[in-house]
Amino acid sequence: MKALQWDGDSLALNTVAKPIAKPGEVLVRLTRAGICNTDLEIIRGYYPFSGTLGHEFVGIVDEAANPSLIGKRVVSDINSSCHHCAMCQAGMPHHCVNRSALGIHGRDGAFAEFLTTPEENLVIVPDSLEDNLAVYAEPLAAALEIQEQVNFSRHEGVLVIGDGKLGLLITMSLAQAGLEVTLLGHHPHRLELLGLDNISFCSSAPDLKYPVVIEATGNPSGFATAVQLTAPRGALVLKSTYKGNLEFNPAPLVVNEITLLGSRCGPMDKAVALLADGAINPAGLTEEIFPLTRAPQAIARANKKGTLKVLLEMGS
Amino acid sequence: MKALQWDGDSLALNTVAKPIAKPGEVLVRLTRAGICNTDLEIIRGYYPFSGTLGHEFVGIVDEAANPSLIGKRVVSDINSSCHHCAMCQAGMPHHCVNRSALGIHGRDGAFAEFLTTPEENLVIVPDSLEDNLAVYAEPLAAALEIQEQVNFSRHEGVLVIGDGKLGLLITMSLAQAGLEVTLLGHHPHRLELLGLDNISFCSSAPDLKYPVVIEATGNPSGFATAVQLTAPRGALVLKSTYKGNLEFNPAPLVVNEITLLGSRCGPMDKAVALLADGAINPAGLTEEIFPLTRAPQAIARANKKGTLKVLLEMGS
Repeated sequence: MKALQWDGDSLALNTVAKPIAKPGEVLVRLTRAGICNTDLEIIRGYYPFSGTLGHEFVGIVDEAANPSLIGKRVVSDINSSCHHCAMCQAGMPHHCVNRSALGIHGRDGAFAEFLTTPEENLVIVPDSLEDNLAVYAEPLAAALEIQEQVNFSRHEGVLVIGDGKLGLLITMSLAQAGLEVTLLGHHPHRLELLGLDNISFCSSAPDLKYPVVIEATGNPSGFATAVQLTAPRGALVLKSTYKGNLEFNPAPLVVNEITLLGSRCGPMDKAVALLADGAINPAGLTEEIFPLTRAPQAIARANKKGTLKVLLEMGS
Repeated sequence: MKALQWDGDSLALNTVAKPIAKPGEVLVRLTRAGICNTDLEIIRGYYPFSGTLGHEFVGIVDEAANPSLIGKRVVSDINSSCHHCAMCQAGMPHHCVNRSALGIHGRDGAFAEFLTTPEENLVIVPDSLEDNLAVYAEPLAAALEIQEQVNFSRHEGVLVIGDGKLGLLITMSLAQAGLEVTLLGHHPHRLELLGLDNISFCSSAPDLKYPVVIEATGNPSGFATAVQLTAPRGALVLKSTYKGNLEFNPAPLVVNEITLLGSRCGPMDKAVALLADGAINPAGLTEEIFPLTRAPQAIARANKKGTLKVLLEMGS
């Protein structure tokens, strides 16, 4: 099969053996995959992964011990957990010390024709939800994780910094939850694109400070702005992964007693449910769809500044 | 009167006019003051304050509208609040946008013969509590603030990084609260000095990760160690103020979903109560006591690496 692989040094569309499902795993034939900034950061050296990239996908179960799963359309949690370590035992399988993560750590990912993933990680995709939307389940779950971590009061304003694909998904998820969201970014027309007419937009740092600020720019100046705009005793959610270090003045964090929350993967089942009933519709986020055979060009496109979501289509 | 003043450029023991209490304020004749790292950081340029330094003190009310206060021994919250701004109205007077802070921001401090402070900020010191211990009320309150912010479970281990004066006060306060504390530092004998025989000590980073880590070293490498040693979904409390920037790799914060909590001033009344009933006895933290007339030498002493608390004694 074809697979877009990173060897720590260069990217190539290789022809490789179809993966073989281990006990407890299923083989999934991929239909769509999404390119995430984390993929681009791996290529920039953020994380020492080598293998098939990609962790946002939807596909069809091709082989499974449980015959009722075969032919089902699925997405999958990207973290495979051991169930034995202290973190798993403490109910935090996403933080399993022995985990692998699809296309990020210890397990080949989704920019390929097939992948394997634990059966227990699958979430079935309802027939009504088309592939081009279901492929957003993983990044939407990451956006929803914020609501698992922050105790929002309905009366509080939330500022999202960054109107890239992750910032926009976060904005959509918070607005859907009934929160009053302000988006700080550079592309006001993107709100229109997504039908988000109840969101306040600002193109430069507002005068106000916010009780909750979400940093989703992925660049150090976004973080500095976020610290500045978080109200005393407020929460600052750090959603981006970066290559390299952040440099910042910690005094405002201490003096204003700000809570900084790192935030990663979230609940896939909730994401699929919100996509399936149309509560969140990220169709407007898709910038372009490339066939898997043109995956290197898709990565190049995704790497261009100002690009929203680039998808890969398999079997075309 | 004599006052140790910083003019933004140099330090001098000046002869200045005795301060005059405004409506709502009392005049306090100081008896002891403590030198805090924040004082030293101001002198290093951490914060653009000029005026009389010092915010840890105990003294005797000399003038007050309320005659029953006169002659009472007191400590005082260092933050003076407006009671009108949004933060005050939201019940966070320590974060008042119009606040002054004794010896730090907009108000002369305690390295002098007299200071003024709002009557509402006073906490009466019981007769049984001697000046040399009462002077620890402010830094102990700052240590206790951690317990106001972190939801400790009694079964969780806590790691304190830094066995300087603040780290040791934090260690004492957490141990007193019944928590299992490990202290990472360079001076194991200091635990003995303070009678803390139930504390685990390590002189290099342990192999374990901790659900709660307190950073109290005040240096950037301490912060990097703290991030490393915080368990996934754990809390990292940032207690130190620094001059300049911290540089760190934010990936572990995001990947491990760590909560970073900035922490500043705490409850003075609780601190006085714990000191008064002997539940916390910081006597062993005092390195040396200088008369106010030798305040510049006291600052030089406090600035020496490895020095614990240096106190000033007034009227001697």
